[in-house]
Amino acid sequence: MSEPWVYIKDLSEYVGKEVTIKGWLYNKRSSGKIHFLQLRDGTGTVQGVMVKQEVTEEDFQTVKNLWIEASLEVSGIVRADERAPSGFEITVTTLTVIDNPSEEYPIGKKEHGIDFLLDHRHLWLRSSRQHAILTIRERVIWSAREFLHTEGYLLVDSPILTGSIGEGASGLFELDYFEDKAYLAQTGQLYAEAAAAAFGKVYTFGPTFRAEKSKTRRHLTEFWMLEPEVAFYDHEDNMKLQEDLVCYIVSQVLLHCRKELELLERDTAMLERIVPPFYHISYDEAMNILHKLGSSTPYGDDFGGEDETLITNEFDKPVFVECYPKKVKAFYMKEHPDNPDLVLCDDLLAPEGYGEIIGGSQREDDYDKLLARIREEKLPEESYNWYLDLRRYGTFVHSGFGIGIERTVAWICGLNHIREAIPWPRTIYRITP
Amino acid sequence: MSEPWVYIKDLSEYVGKEVTIKGWLYNKRSSGKIHFLQLRDGTGTVQGVMVKQEVTEEDFQTVKNLWIEASLEVSGIVRADERAPSGFEITVTTLTVIDNPSEEYPIGKKEHGIDFLLDHRHLWLRSSRQHAILTIRERVIWSAREFLHTEGYLLVDSPILTGSIGEGASGLFELDYFEDKAYLAQTGQLYAEAAAAAFGKVYTFGPTFRAEKSKTRRHLTEFWMLEPEVAFYDHEDNMKLQEDLVCYIVSQVLLHCRKELELLERDTAMLERIVPPFYHISYDEAMNILHKLGSSTPYGDDFGGEDETLITNEFDKPVFVECYPKKVKAFYMKEHPDNPDLVLCDDLLAPEGYGEIIGGSQREDDYDKLLARIREEKLPEESYNWYLDLRRYGTFVHSGFGIGIERTVAWICGLNHIREAIPWPRTIYRITP
Repeated sequence: MSEPWVYIKDLSEYVGKEVTIKGWLYNKRSSGKIHFLQLRDGTGTVQGVMVKQEVTEEDFQTVKNLWIEASLEVSGIVRADERAPSGFEITVTTLTVIDNPSEEYPIGKKEHGIDFLLDHRHLWLRSSRQHAILTIRERVIWSAREFLHTEGYLLVDSPILTGSIGEGASGLFELDYFEDKAYLAQTGQLYAEAAAAAFGKVYTFGPTFRAEKSKTRRHLTEFWMLEPEVAFYDHEDNMKLQEDLVCYIVSQVLLHCRKELELLERDTAMLERIVPPFYHISYDEAMNILHKLGSSTPYGDDFGGEDETLITNEFDKPVFVECYPKKVKAFYMKEHPDNPDLVLCDDLLAPEGYGEIIGGSQREDDYDKLLARIREEKLPEESYNWYLDLRRYGTFVHSGFGIGIERTVAWICGLNHIREAIPWPRTIYRITP
Repeated sequence: MSEPWVYIKDLSEYVGKEVTIKGWLYNKRSSGKIHFLQLRDGTGTVQGVMVKQEVTEEDFQTVKNLWIEASLEVSGIVRADERAPSGFEITVTTLTVIDNPSEEYPIGKKEHGIDFLLDHRHLWLRSSRQHAILTIRERVIWSAREFLHTEGYLLVDSPILTGSIGEGASGLFELDYFEDKAYLAQTGQLYAEAAAAAFGKVYTFGPTFRAEKSKTRRHLTEFWMLEPEVAFYDHEDNMKLQEDLVCYIVSQVLLHCRKELELLERDTAMLERIVPPFYHISYDEAMNILHKLGSSTPYGDDFGGEDETLITNEFDKPVFVECYPKKVKAFYMKEHPDNPDLVLCDDLLAPEGYGEIIGGSQREDDYDKLLARIREEKLPEESYNWYLDLRRYGTFVHSGFGIGIERTVAWICGLNHIREAIPWPRTIYRITP
């Protein structure tokens, strides 16, 4: 081919010129003397118009036998066309078939069940809906990193394979590690705390693992979590940082992903509202709201998914729920100075029923209190000796949080289930493809 | 405190003003009537000068009892001082001790063995050398992501927990996954190929795992790998992309991390040379070089670390070694069109003895040939059925590669061993802290 290979997203630069597109046929229709080829190349979609008398007879006949998802090189002239969804069309001059499948593409126009789609996740990704979701996911991740990089946070990757335990002893994946045992990290936080003592403002960002038998629309066994940790930040500073980060992410998605939000039929008015200040309520206030709304969750328990939905339906913006009872939260959270039964923590609940996207806290910086909590929870003290060192050598007020990427993406995209918010979802029943 | 809390890196904006630094004491000395406090806050280091007659007697006495790594709030006036390494000093007015350790900091000025340092990695990170290395690591990662994001690559995270196997059946970490077995990903590549069929230009970037009993200075059991994959790129396009990416990363480190490179005593002249074009030699040529230099590695074998060192010592820039024998490379590599015993692959070897930082290839896009290779390698065919789908439905020329982050950081920083290039190294004998 002598025409330049161009991506569909760049067609606007080639109006009136002959170009070559390399991609796949995602649909076609014909009206006797014209074939309409719907083409995708991963960067966008465009219609190729092939007129019988303008191409070779062979090329024209070839199209009749093409299956969906045939891979093609299509050359033609780029035309601006206001009626086209992309704003452009290609008048086809030549067509080269790279590969015409020998069988029908399994994902058709009919409705498929979710299990079928998840079994074919490697092909399902080719749909425009999945493209839109993963483009927004990329923007969420990029803007979060950009925010932290620009603010001088140092990325300090935490380990996945670890001898210590994280949040608690339950829900851990265990594996043989040569002559030893290892666990998959549930959080990078403990390591982030050590890094905060070294570098001040840090974050970890990686996959985390929970071997929980949860089958809700909010749970995955493998999910990505961003965990900033800041030396000398207290509970209030921590919530401000969360608010700033979430607002930045949403604003960047609105700025760059309008087309994708539209394709997902997302009500962007709900996202335009995501500006400071967010709401703040205490755990006690949240309980009062729940009890007024008829929830039977007893005072002192953690909230379930349905409780979070009830709470967030009362608010048009994200809401911080602060200061939970110590006994439902992880051992490392800072004891409340006015009430030793509570901790200086927050969960940030996304609106529209989405619920928790962030869990954060000030950390217990008192050596004796932290050790007592480790013992109360019957955690293996030996494994936490290095973590206790952070309280032995220059302990310091510090706070941090974890933001779940898939929950954030599901909320921003308006998805019903978290499984579409990650390329390859892992749940209790699914480890493939 | 009424003075603003500022980071040491921002002191230049506060010359002549009173500020507060929150951080740690990393060293001190006294000359009777003056204490010199070496302070660090994670963003930099600065000397605080405390003159007896300018502070309270209590503050002055307090310093005498401070241990290294005491956490402090230090207020004082910022002075420009050309003799100071940072260019500034602080004339201390008040000092608040947050926490003075009750015992001596374990990492002292004396030489420590590597095992001791790795056992205390959570504290060792506080050293200026580790700060420099991890600052460069952050820049390597950031600039790689920036390069790909700017070029329109979509981040498509691949799973860590997987039922399929990746490069081959050996060296896998296996774990119980509810009623099933799962493996930790050795590579995200197979998933990246599916994503390339959906989105054109993609990359994965995450931790990968090798349960190999390698004890060399180039091996970790857990390491981060960036894996671009591009639809319709062939072997040559693939190497050009690798060259561009590596040159961008090195140029960005040179632009932003001069101070860190200097602290590491890195010869930057070697890095200034990292511009296109890199060298290209074939596997056969590499073998000839080795045999001339006295290596006894037989033709047909893969190169060992020592071989790579020998080869790279012959070149002043990175060198691509192309087209290895099929039998020493992974099953998914594209058969060479002129010689079915070879594959269209490349290893990129970093100079100065560092060796392989990238492995890449064009992928086998022929269904029958790929299936034959899976059978030859006795891989579980069933697990690769979804991967074969990529050759059933619109197969396409495509190529990609993996760049090892720790090896790249070790080379750019000039480290003797890869273990310092990751915050929490995991090796055959080490799973903690």
